[in-house]
Amino acid sequence: MAVYIGLVHYPIYNRNMEVVTTSLTNYDLHDIARTARTYGMVKYFIIQPNETQAKLAQDIIDYWQTGYGSQYHEDRKEAFSVLQMVDTIEEAIRQIQQREGKVPLVATTDARTYANTISYQALRDKLAANDQPYLLLFGTGWGIEKTTMAKFDFILAPIYGAGDYNHLPVRAAAAIILDRLLGEKWWK
Amino acid sequence: MAVYIGLVHYPIYNRNMEVVTTSLTNYDLHDIARTARTYGMVKYFIIQPNETQAKLAQDIIDYWQTGYGSQYHEDRKEAFSVLQMVDTIEEAIRQIQQREGKVPLVATTDARTYANTISYQALRDKLAANDQPYLLLFGTGWGIEKTTMAKFDFILAPIYGAGDYNHLPVRAAAAIILDRLLGEKWWK
Repeated sequence: MAVYIGLVHYPIYNRNMEVVTTSLTNYDLHDIARTARTYGMVKYFIIQPNETQAKLAQDIIDYWQTGYGSQYHEDRKEAFSVLQMVDTIEEAIRQIQQREGKVPLVATTDARTYANTISYQALRDKLAANDQPYLLLFGTGWGIEKTTMAKFDFILAPIYGAGDYNHLPVRAAAAIILDRLLGEKWWK
Repeated sequence: MAVYIGLVHYPIYNRNMEVVTTSLTNYDLHDIARTARTYGMVKYFIIQPNETQAKLAQDIIDYWQTGYGSQYHEDRKEAFSVLQMVDTIEEAIRQIQQREGKVPLVATTDARTYANTISYQALRDKLAANDQPYLLLFGTGWGIEKTTMAKFDFILAPIYGAGDYNHLPVRAAAAIILDRLLGEKWWK
């Protein structure tokens, strides 16, 4: 099953609803790479157009893929093996197309409901059918800019917990979403 | 439903299977507090007997519960409102008993199978019955020491992904486990 994920740093809303490029968070690399590797992602793209930020991310990735980190921590090296820097969402899609021979379907989450809103069960069934590559995108900051969002194929509902508080870290949301879409069938 | 979680820093195995006290990780406070608040935990205990480490954790908690952080980031203040430092697992249990009038049942995860191993579905049903407080414990390092583990009421199977790689961060494992036990019923 060819499933890819991407963490989007541009185009992203800040808290004033201005479109910005967000900064690297080291734990987004480590935690989401470990989750991505556990759930069998082909690649985990860090989508970051800012050159200074991309260089910093690449330095961290190199340290764990081929540098000193790769020698003393085998499990982390393996997690980091899925990480791949790209400068745009389009470049991630292009790399998947090149590798898989098909344009991937793109899914993300949003708090609003769209015509192409899809349930977790329905997307899980699509992934299991295994006839198409998929790219699951996760936003940073206050979410992905809306005209970009409008181009995606499927929008998942956000994760709700027990009440009205709904501020999961992207690292936790990514873990829960991959478990819902690709985890073992643990329920009766 | 009175459900509590705790992050255990002692007694924990290190990579040489020696029993140690593990150190604070700042993201364990932030990420797991946000997840705990989202899934309606009454309290999120940081179980840490080392006084220097406990003081550092308490300083961070104070910053977000009552200090400057609490004034500029309301959502984070609310997440941190569930955090509570204790020095032992027993003290966490005592505080729950005092608040709920009943000793909580204690559950955790382990890679091995025990007589009291329980499925996610079975523990989800127990939590939904809502007749007993529960304390879900998460280990750090290389896991909770085995004679301590033997005293717990229920042991959940570990989270498996797509293959043999199984190195989720505790922050991701906690998110997935709370979603399985307490999240909305998203499956058909």
